[in-house]
Amino acid sequence: MYSKEEIRKEIIEAVNKVKETNPMAGSITNTVTINFVANAQLAVGGSAAMVYLPDEGEFLANAGGATYINVGTLMPIYEETLPRTAKALHDAGKPWVLDPVAIGIGELRTKLLSQFKEYKPSVIRGNASEVIALAGLWELDGGSDSSNVRGVDSTDTVTAARNAAIALAKYTGGAVAVSGKTDLITDGETVVYSKGGSHFMERVTGCGCSLGGVAAVYLTASSPFIAALTASNVYNLAGARAESKVNASGSFYVQFIDELYLATAEDIADNPMDIEKA
Amino acid sequence: MYSKEEIRKEIIEAVNKVKETNPMAGSITNTVTINFVANAQLAVGGSAAMVYLPDEGEFLANAGGATYINVGTLMPIYEETLPRTAKALHDAGKPWVLDPVAIGIGELRTKLLSQFKEYKPSVIRGNASEVIALAGLWELDGGSDSSNVRGVDSTDTVTAARNAAIALAKYTGGAVAVSGKTDLITDGETVVYSKGGSHFMERVTGCGCSLGGVAAVYLTASSPFIAALTASNVYNLAGARAESKVNASGSFYVQFIDELYLATAEDIADNPMDIEKA
Amino acid sequence: MYSKEEIRKEIIEAVNKVKETNPMAGSITNTVTINFVANAQLAVGGSAAMVYLPDEGEFLANAGGATYINVGTLMPIYEETLPRTAKALHDAGKPWVLDPVAIGIGELRTKLLSQFKEYKPSVIRGNASEVIALAGLWELDGGSDSSNVRGVDSTDTVTAARNAAIALAKYTGGAVAVSGKTDLITDGETVVYSKGGSHFMERVTGCGCSLGGVAAVYLTASSPFIAALTASNVYNLAGARAESKVNASGSFYVQFIDELYLATAEDIADNPMDIEKA
Repeated sequence: MYSKEEIRKEIIEAVNKVKETNPMAGSITNTVTINFVANAQLAVGGSAAMVYLPDEGEFLANAGGATYINVGTLMPIYEETLPRTAKALHDAGKPWVLDPVAIGIGELRTKLLSQFKEYKPSVIRGNASEVIALAGLWELDGGSDSSNVRGVDSTDTVTAARNAAIALAKYTGGAVAVSGKTDLITDGETVVYSKGGSHFMERVTGCGCSLGGVAAVYLTASSPFIAALTASNVYNLAGARAESKVNASGSFYVQFIDELYLATAEDIADNPMDIEKA
Repeated sequence: MYSKEEIRKEIIEAVNKVKETNPMAGSITNTVTINFVANAQLAVGGSAAMVYLPDEGEFLANAGGATYINVGTLMPIYEETLPRTAKALHDAGKPWVLDPVAIGIGELRTKLLSQFKEYKPSVIRGNASEVIALAGLWELDGGSDSSNVRGVDSTDTVTAARNAAIALAKYTGGAVAVSGKTDLITDGETVVYSKGGSHFMERVTGCGCSLGGVAAVYLTASSPFIAALTASNVYNLAGARAESKVNASGSFYVQFIDELYLATAEDIADNPMDIEKA
Repeated sequence: MYSKEEIRKEIIEAVNKVKETNPMAGSITNTVTINFVANAQLAVGGSAAMVYLPDEGEFLANAGGATYINVGTLMPIYEETLPRTAKALHDAGKPWVLDPVAIGIGELRTKLLSQFKEYKPSVIRGNASEVIALAGLWELDGGSDSSNVRGVDSTDTVTAARNAAIALAKYTGGAVAVSGKTDLITDGETVVYSKGGSHFMERVTGCGCSLGGVAAVYLTASSPFIAALTASNVYNLAGARAESKVNASGSFYVQFIDELYLATAEDIADNPMDIEKA
């Protein structure tokens, strides 16, 4: 189990390494928030590239330091693109982030998310309902069916997803980040609750998706657990700081990107966290 | 015919119900303004979800309180997705908003818009040229061919579309909102002119599309006529307020979303309107 | 070779003509930055319309004053849409801008960019690595393979692409704009270095893509060389002005659009430039 001091040290290293090396993290992600994902990745110091076609997904998988796959707005070609990209990542030993958005809607989504079990995403990021449903789909502890997923929204609490998150992390050997009022991040052994954020984050589309994209950027420079935690911390920090400066959701988005850009490694490492054994 | 006091009361009820219940309105919409649509829906208190695939469209049709269909950037799969989604909405008696963007461009667009006649959208939202062209395509009074549609822009005035709007509303049994310098909203019996807005709304892409998405949110909580009018009113209010605070189009967008977020039910109900018999 | 005074005069004419006539420039472009492209086009006074389907591309090619084609996030249908649109532009003698984003990634991208040679884009806009790679693909002087393209980023300097840019411009009879710290614009005879911009332009996705879209707007009102130069100048001007007013990338984007909107013809014509013989 990680100590607070180890976590703090590794977060600082990850953030600074990203700022120094401008690592590329490719994405296959939904069209609703694709611009937010790219701008958030750029704001923290990474580089972004998005594609839809199978051979381009494989190319990015091998060219990038890590990859972000979000199943938000599936297109027909994804039936081929996503498994091939996930396989390329797995075969090359490259880390990747899975965002199982809206799990339970549609046949293709279920099929793809089932296939991903084999390719073991390094980080799984979702809201509580999505994490519980993915554990259910993969027949792991803490899972359930997807009946509590309402479109892209969660109807479960983060703590309700604790067992599912731990089971998923143990299965993949990576980490899981459950987004909510307080975020839960675990590698199956340590559980961290990252605090902060803002009520405005539910009023701006894509705070969850772009957190996944930012986790992929940090995944080029750290372990899955530290990447997931660093992304959650910078989101909670930026959210809280932005909220204190604005009074509505349009300004919040702009200020939020600014705070992502301005946050230092120490700021991010010092974001309030509670740590416990899984 | 509605009285001003009835309209005022129903707008207040619709706005407050949305703020209290956070209703989900799914969309199939173009990639240019999809993010604006989602953020506008969230700003007024709704929840958003976007999809492209046929069975996902059917799922959202049944899961959401209302649905928004915008034919802006058609993809090949839409040939299947849009009729199946519209049919699912019609069969389930669920309300939906149609935005016939750029009617007249391309074979698939014409085919889809022709098919929609059967599924009677609860609200039709377009600029004057689009509304006239849709009435023409559906062989209703006031219609004409689409020769005055220039890409996504209108070359007709709102009053020129009055007869077409009334004919469309009478045919569907729903409402029509014609966007322009002053907006015209009708249910075929009452005609309301909603005033305000801003010249900047022509300099920011998606003010029309996102108005349609917001109308879908209000459609979960009111009649088609009140939903279309509430959406038009909040857009005119937010546009006028935002214009008074900025001097260019980038800031206008941000301030506009802020004003959507901040507008109260009473503000929206009290936006300047003229009411007449159809 | 152009004199500075001729350039200045033609830029002023192009900018004012666009502001007066609100010309439409259609686009087929990537989903990451499609909203930025449209809003930038609108900010400078143009009108935007985006499509994906083959017959819609042909329609826009003929309906618009110029067209922007960006191969960023290819979809399968583009195999048909892009050659048909480029052919329609070529056959109608309509000007168009090509943005060979991420040249070298994937089979379809290479195939499409090879096909475009025949249809001679009026303006080619890319970073240094993309311009060098396109000259290489078309077997022109100064070209090389695409090994220095890293996703959407350049690893070459603008001056390294000077010969490739000149060769491409001579081949097409149009102009080439190479984006970088200083931009290089050439028609094969005159070479202009346009200065200014901001380090934030690398931290906001789509500054390159939207420059291409803005070049298409100016292409409706001027020669390829003046269109490419006017777009580069307004971007450098707006970037420098925006940077002086903000401290982070979220605010930069908003301020940048504002500065595009506010820049006068004289401001744009007077942006610092160095001119030399090719």
